[in-house]
Amino acid sequence: MDLGREISESGRFVRQPNRFTARIEPDGQHPPEPGRYQLYASYACPWAHRSLIVRELLGLQDVVGVTIVDPIRDEKGWRIPGGDPVTGVEYLSELYLSSDPGYQGRYTVPCVWDVTAGRLVTNDYPQITLTLETAFAPWHADGAPALYPAALRGEIDALNEVIFNGLNDGVYRTGFATSQAAYDEAVVRVFDTLDLLEERLAGRPYLHGDALTESDVRLYPTLARFDAVYHSHFKCSIRRLTDYPALWAYARRLYATPAFRDTTDFDQIKRHYFVTQTNINPSRIVPRGPELDWTAGQPPSGRPERPADGTAGA
Amino acid sequence: MDLGREISESGRFVRQPNRFTARIEPDGQHPPEPGRYQLYASYACPWAHRSLIVRELLGLQDVVGVTIVDPIRDEKGWRIPGGDPVTGVEYLSELYLSSDPGYQGRYTVPCVWDVTAGRLVTNDYPQITLTLETAFAPWHADGAPALYPAALRGEIDALNEVIFNGLNDGVYRTGFATSQAAYDEAVVRVFDTLDLLEERLAGRPYLHGDALTESDVRLYPTLARFDAVYHSHFKCSIRRLTDYPALWAYARRLYATPAFRDTTDFDQIKRHYFVTQTNINPSRIVPRGPELDWTAGQPPSGRPERPADGTAGA
Repeated sequence: MDLGREISESGRFVRQPNRFTARIEPDGQHPPEPGRYQLYASYACPWAHRSLIVRELLGLQDVVGVTIVDPIRDEKGWRIPGGDPVTGVEYLSELYLSSDPGYQGRYTVPCVWDVTAGRLVTNDYPQITLTLETAFAPWHADGAPALYPAALRGEIDALNEVIFNGLNDGVYRTGFATSQAAYDEAVVRVFDTLDLLEERLAGRPYLHGDALTESDVRLYPTLARFDAVYHSHFKCSIRRLTDYPALWAYARRLYATPAFRDTTDFDQIKRHYFVTQTNINPSRIVPRGPELDWTAGQPPSGRPERPADGTAGA
Repeated sequence: MDLGREISESGRFVRQPNRFTARIEPDGQHPPEPGRYQLYASYACPWAHRSLIVRELLGLQDVVGVTIVDPIRDEKGWRIPGGDPVTGVEYLSELYLSSDPGYQGRYTVPCVWDVTAGRLVTNDYPQITLTLETAFAPWHADGAPALYPAALRGEIDALNEVIFNGLNDGVYRTGFATSQAAYDEAVVRVFDTLDLLEERLAGRPYLHGDALTESDVRLYPTLARFDAVYHSHFKCSIRRLTDYPALWAYARRLYATPAFRDTTDFDQIKRHYFVTQTNINPSRIVPRGPELDWTAGQPPSGRPERPADGTAGA
């Protein structure tokens, strides 16, 4: 995995900016329409995981298509096993390069392809979920949650910044650090942020009160990967998620919701990080542990269960 | 760290045999005598840790000298900061090569130097503690424990084999595996062995009953390193030591004993593994975690305390 351009002289990981930032919006070049857009996502990637959760929470499965890439990324990047039924490509890079022949960054998920225009609209992950929540509102299922209600947007945006810097990106800055100083700085911030959220969640079921919002969607993918991957692989090891009673109960509460559970694949998550990131794990060996019970203390849901632990299977 | 010769074609770590296997014994070439032998040890190394524990348990500090090597091993191997007061060497390799100019293996601790003969007697770690317990019996302190009593030797030797294969060497076979199959095989054996010992210790304070023996000395160094290093660095991650109630209480019971606590340096242990084994940890970054309380539930000892947790310090 080549992070050369994203590692600073002081050993800090500085995430590349997103290159494709067009918006899907009414009256624009890319208006929202059912069947017009294809989302490319990986079950392994936390940034893509958000978009899969929101698509299902809002009941947009028949409105926005999805192509799932293989969790094991090789030197050519994310691969679509069997080829993409929508575009025919085998590698995600082909969509990037056909849209911008000069593109030199990493080919990232999530990204959205405009089937009508035949080009990539966006790989701007923070915008993708907001777009599903706003521009696609006319197609939301009846009773879908209001994940980004106008009255709460200021608070949601502010907390999302804390979650991004302290956790979503913070765990990567911890794990990709190449100097002890950069690591120390990042890991302390990760745990300061968990401490803060533990306190916040001690008194309410969701981050902004009684209703699920975009902030919960952004926090969950990092929590789902925390003990299984980040604790050891990214050295976020001061404490575990399971050492935080309120956060761990909250994470299991979300996991008990189909849109979260259906999109959480611990096996793909573990294989992706441990096999792909050879800068951290040269042996590419996937650990068996840790044993975790994501269904502990949750009511039976009556839905078919995915593997509920973080183990790599037999 | 070059393990080339010790990794099999199937990715299994096969520990090199010990080259120096002369015995310190009455009427032999190397008879036991106070002041004649110097032990070379590292606080980081579990094989050397045993010998430091036994030397202190038996009150042999004025009988057998000790030189502590630096925990950070470079390409020239273990280094003696400031030079060895007994032999004047700066690197342990000089003792190996002056004793055997053709030596090509790793230079390992523990090893014992005969000051009178001016040569290395042994780097045969399983024999070194037994020698302190038997050949040096005339110099044991009053009230020193009988760590290797004749009546129990068969049982002790048999259990030591289980501990060696399942844990002492088992964690290294897990961590140094270069194939998934070799890892899977080794990690399962590690946890099968912990399960077995958990059951054994549920009903007795020490492995062979009410008295401390050589088996306890052999198990402890692996337990002391388990959550702090092996859990993440060697991917022994199915469970933690702290998830085993009897084993964790037993480990803290030993830690409350001065000979165990005085020789346990969590900071040197962590720095050694994470900085030296770049085949596993290319960044050489030392994790901050995990937070562990080795003094939890133990009576105050009144002795000066070493750092009691597994963190790398501020």
